[in-house]
Amino acid sequence: MNYSKHITHALQNDPPGEWMPTLPDQCIRLSSGFPSKELVPVKEINKATSKLLDEEQDLPLHYLGTPKLDAIKEQLIHRLEKRDLRANSNQLLVTAGACQAIDLIARIFLDEETLVVVEDPTYMEALEIFRNYTNRLICIPVDEKGLRTDKLEEFLEMRQSQGQSLPRFVYTIPTFQNPTGTTMPLARRRHLLALASHYDFHILEDDAYGELYFNKELPTLKSLDKENRVLYVGSLSKVVAPGLRIGYIVATEELITSLYWFKKDLDHPFTQAIMSTYLANNDQQTHLEILRKAYMQKRDCMIKSLNEHMPSIVHWIVPEGGYFVWVEVQGIDTNQLLQDALDRGVAYLPGRYFFLNPNNGKHYLRLSFSYASMEEIETGVKLLADLIKEKKQNL
Amino acid sequence: MNYSKHITHALQNDPPGEWMPTLPDQCIRLSSGFPSKELVPVKEINKATSKLLDEEQDLPLHYLGTPKLDAIKEQLIHRLEKRDLRANSNQLLVTAGACQAIDLIARIFLDEETLVVVEDPTYMEALEIFRNYTNRLICIPVDEKGLRTDKLEEFLEMRQSQGQSLPRFVYTIPTFQNPTGTTMPLARRRHLLALASHYDFHILEDDAYGELYFNKELPTLKSLDKENRVLYVGSLSKVVAPGLRIGYIVATEELITSLYWFKKDLDHPFTQAIMSTYLANNDQQTHLEILRKAYMQKRDCMIKSLNEHMPSIVHWIVPEGGYFVWVEVQGIDTNQLLQDALDRGVAYLPGRYFFLNPNNGKHYLRLSFSYASMEEIETGVKLLADLIKEKKQNL
Repeated sequence: MNYSKHITHALQNDPPGEWMPTLPDQCIRLSSGFPSKELVPVKEINKATSKLLDEEQDLPLHYLGTPKLDAIKEQLIHRLEKRDLRANSNQLLVTAGACQAIDLIARIFLDEETLVVVEDPTYMEALEIFRNYTNRLICIPVDEKGLRTDKLEEFLEMRQSQGQSLPRFVYTIPTFQNPTGTTMPLARRRHLLALASHYDFHILEDDAYGELYFNKELPTLKSLDKENRVLYVGSLSKVVAPGLRIGYIVATEELITSLYWFKKDLDHPFTQAIMSTYLANNDQQTHLEILRKAYMQKRDCMIKSLNEHMPSIVHWIVPEGGYFVWVEVQGIDTNQLLQDALDRGVAYLPGRYFFLNPNNGKHYLRLSFSYASMEEIETGVKLLADLIKEKKQNL
Repeated sequence: MNYSKHITHALQNDPPGEWMPTLPDQCIRLSSGFPSKELVPVKEINKATSKLLDEEQDLPLHYLGTPKLDAIKEQLIHRLEKRDLRANSNQLLVTAGACQAIDLIARIFLDEETLVVVEDPTYMEALEIFRNYTNRLICIPVDEKGLRTDKLEEFLEMRQSQGQSLPRFVYTIPTFQNPTGTTMPLARRRHLLALASHYDFHILEDDAYGELYFNKELPTLKSLDKENRVLYVGSLSKVVAPGLRIGYIVATEELITSLYWFKKDLDHPFTQAIMSTYLANNDQQTHLEILRKAYMQKRDCMIKSLNEHMPSIVHWIVPEGGYFVWVEVQGIDTNQLLQDALDRGVAYLPGRYFFLNPNNGKHYLRLSFSYASMEEIETGVKLLADLIKEKKQNL
């Protein structure tokens, strides 16, 4: 097939969604980064849709014309203001989810030879996206406090001293990282921003989980950014519902204009208007409080189960928010383990999909406490622990 | 700003949506390619949403999991079967509207130096999209019977005889073309397919209006295609509602896999599931019969008004389906005329936006009979006719 040069290269990578296991019926889904069944506001979205169509009739069903396309931007701006993040309506683009946001940003910045820094490990969908654009991904390790900005600085110093090109941007999930659940402390955040300023690069801040803190809230990179270096990506997928595909980008007016240029699915009037109506009629502070409390309970449940059942070769990081627990299983290949786990009725994501070099993820796996019920979490962790214990005996 | 090489070039074109006039309040919209207010199934979509959420609860609000993601593909396949167009579920991709479909196809095929043939005039959004990818657009004229395939053949012969590269694909709207409303007769369709075979190129068939015929139906290029050369783009925007953003591509399994690779907004479970529920509960043959009858009446109304009011310097093509009437106004610059028309309360789209060389559209304009009511169509055409008569006196 005569594809474009660029695409021919991209198609040599693993196909999208390779990481997604085929789940047997009744399998406990500790793999899915889905919100909790009970916390998705089904009734409220149903009500919002009726209200919207009763009030606006055909308006939200056309290409444009519903006032809600402006309203949702104002609502998102207001939401961000509460987190000390200021933007006007020309500095915000509503996207079809955070993935599209990341894809659009990659599209305007990356050529095949452009350097991009990602966290090691990082969000598998973001890896897939960046690989579609560039061959020059650089990974910098994450520890229990997120991105190792000291290692990043070493790398940048070395490149500069050798007269080599510097990265166009650093992609980071500073808060409740996917997959590690880690959070960068304030000092590292400031360090990263100082590096961006000194070495003149952008930061692509993915904040999909930022509102889901269990204890304290840390300022976003964007709110600390004095030089417009941060492109901020937010999402309502984890805090309302992913099926509506509502994400957003905050950046300079110039960048937003350029990003919209290539967004050829255009606006999504119906879902944006439904979301706007939902937001207007359901207090979000109350909703977020409920989510934080519920997800903290589920996190506690998962950590308790891990403590109770896992053998000593297994270690994990306790997250202070978000959806995920990152687990190290010494001496066991988590990719090989997966089929046995699925056969026993529990699913997780093997570490390999989160690393640029899949081998580095061999002994890791990501557990999600967001979707499964507490009962399922307990059962699932126990099933997995039993399996690991058996495998350990055979080591 | 350090954009990627490719994007820097694209940003030098007119920004997207330049063609969209800012409408004064109460302006009669003969500019908008929107479906008729009365024909958008507002109540049915409202009902479908309630039914869906009652039955499936949170399922359609997650990233995946609703059976409707498969169901809508089956429904579209069944819909196409009735038009002699056969596909299996691996040969169909649901997109967020036809624009995204065209964008994805452009993305996998086009480099900056890739030749693409477009109709002259053609759909302004498609022009915008292709310009984002290549500098090598070639336009072949449209007459009252659509694309001049004889001119295309001359062009291809010349390129080949001079040892020059041939086009990667020809973009065409063979049925009720946007903006001219013209339809390619069967002989031209066969000729185009024969050329594609002989000169080894693809055809990108945009069939957004194909179901809206007033008299007889012609076979799609895809249904006549024996060599898998046609990538077929369909849309439910003009026959259900554009705000849900449901389009689709039919192509080979290999192409569909490649196209999905770059669709980073992912599936849109909520709108796809609503549309699927709507389709399952509302007989589409009946619905299409209603649309055809209503749009034919509106077309008749517009043609009658043009006949009654327009001076002799104005000519138009009578469409046999779709949404548009293409109008030539000899001696008058339709771009200059627009502000006066808006001031008097009627909007149209100037011809310039549909041509690769805007000057070629100077004396043309596109009228849409789809959105405005019959009363508005009569008034709007009269207002425009009066304005043209005045301008003519000053020529």
